[in-house]
Amino acid sequence: MNKKKHQIGYLGPIGTFTEIAVNQIFQESDVEIVPYGSLEECILSTYKRETDYAVVPIENSIGGSVSVTLDWLIHEIDIPIKGEVRIPIHQHLLVHPVNHSKKAFTKVFSHPQAIRQCKNYLKEHYRGIEICYTESTAEAASILHQNPDEPWLAIANAIAKEIYALTPIAEEIEDYPTNTTRFVVLGYEDLEINSNVEKSSILLTLPKGAALELHHVLECFASRDLELTKIETAPTKNELGEYYYFLDFLTPGKTKRLAFYECCEEIEEGGCSLRSMGSYPCLSDVKVKI
Amino acid sequence: MNKKKHQIGYLGPIGTFTEIAVNQIFQESDVEIVPYGSLEECILSTYKRETDYAVVPIENSIGGSVSVTLDWLIHEIDIPIKGEVRIPIHQHLLVHPVNHSKKAFTKVFSHPQAIRQCKNYLKEHYRGIEICYTESTAEAASILHQNPDEPWLAIANAIAKEIYALTPIAEEIEDYPTNTTRFVVLGYEDLEINSNVEKSSILLTLPKGAALELHHVLECFASRDLELTKIETAPTKNELGEYYYFLDFLTPGKTKRLAFYECCEEIEEGGCSLRSMGSYPCLSDVKVKI
Repeated sequence: MNKKKHQIGYLGPIGTFTEIAVNQIFQESDVEIVPYGSLEECILSTYKRETDYAVVPIENSIGGSVSVTLDWLIHEIDIPIKGEVRIPIHQHLLVHPVNHSKKAFTKVFSHPQAIRQCKNYLKEHYRGIEICYTESTAEAASILHQNPDEPWLAIANAIAKEIYALTPIAEEIEDYPTNTTRFVVLGYEDLEINSNVEKSSILLTLPKGAALELHHVLECFASRDLELTKIETAPTKNELGEYYYFLDFLTPGKTKRLAFYECCEEIEEGGCSLRSMGSYPCLSDVKVKI
Repeated sequence: MNKKKHQIGYLGPIGTFTEIAVNQIFQESDVEIVPYGSLEECILSTYKRETDYAVVPIENSIGGSVSVTLDWLIHEIDIPIKGEVRIPIHQHLLVHPVNHSKKAFTKVFSHPQAIRQCKNYLKEHYRGIEICYTESTAEAASILHQNPDEPWLAIANAIAKEIYALTPIAEEIEDYPTNTTRFVVLGYEDLEINSNVEKSSILLTLPKGAALELHHVLECFASRDLELTKIETAPTKNELGEYYYFLDFLTPGKTKRLAFYECCEEIEEGGCSLRSMGSYPCLSDVKVKI
């Protein structure tokens, strides 16, 4: 009997960095990938069970947290994280081949995070150029492909360059060579990834009058030798100064995971409100050069 | 002898929320206000001593931290914070009076933060409308004023509505009625503000191998009864997983301020790298209704 292939939602069109992340995590033959036009639609597809997993960017080493993803995970829906992968990000400045010898370009298209990653480059070489934001870097490449008569530029990856038959004007234009994006896999079924790195994430609020404060909470984990890898604050939206704390800890192996759960219980008993965002394997230091 | 008026840089044009913040902090007769086209230009004006102070938004209760402001304070320049004010934010949906009876609108103009603050409203009433981002809410109002023939909408405040002679279609359309923005005053001279709330901010990094970890640092302040009001992480941009921590504490009165400085020294001795972002008075709970 043929098992139904898993459906994986990602931010399309083909040629995005998210597609590269999907290919790192899943064997092509085991899954069917489904492109969506926005991060929201991609996340919703898994929530509505149209897809089994959604792969979404959560953090970039230059731009910081991806606010749309955090906003959805915190405020809109409750889907656990089932896996993580880090992908090195290299951005290229692309042009339609017929415009290759042009000098005066009027617009540059790309995703807001990609524009942020190349801010200094653009300031130095294309000061004052009109910036047009797209939903993905691949969409920017696709716009150039469809408009050969316009003196436009796109910032996108090498795969989008190939797919949309564009020519590079400059390669690896990101301001910091260590540019990396962390992607998470959202879904309701556990993933089998061969990895000895495992993390657990929680979303915490500290109601007024709770016995514990933030330093108590962090001390509680630290005293059990649970390493904090990230703390991110997000507004509760109710009142300025009230926050959600999104905390990631390393929890490799059964003993650490048990200590982690024990600690979570202790914190809840202290009057904090806590939501588990999942315990999941991490694929780190992927060596692909895109 | 007439003393030269202080020059205050703010995000223009006239009618922005930042202008309202400026008017809360400074007496109109004492200062000359200078509008800038972007937050970057506004902050740079003070850095280059073209203005004495720059007033900029740093955080909103719905949208969270204003990333451009944080990015400039952390990565680009070193100007201390000299004051803080919180302003209630009410957004209105505006139209050119000649289009008031129209039903089909094609575009809505506003600042990205304002769009975020009214996300649910737009989804419910104008699903699929094209969103055009502007540098300020007042700029959005000004675009409508200049284009009476176009079926366009703007989201802006009541002052911009008056200045640009627009008509409201709906008032107070922000998704959360407690919508508030915190503004900071940047400059090199202390400000005399009558307030019994005082804060101190630091920017912290925890180098690998430092004796102290984040929970130690927070415990150090807590043990001196110094209340943490905000912790914000920002990428160092060098490597994924390396962060700056932007910490705000309440430090009212001389004794608390001394305890704060003592604590900072102790933390630096523990191998942490620390930059003072200023100690400053806060005007809170401004009751203006805009």
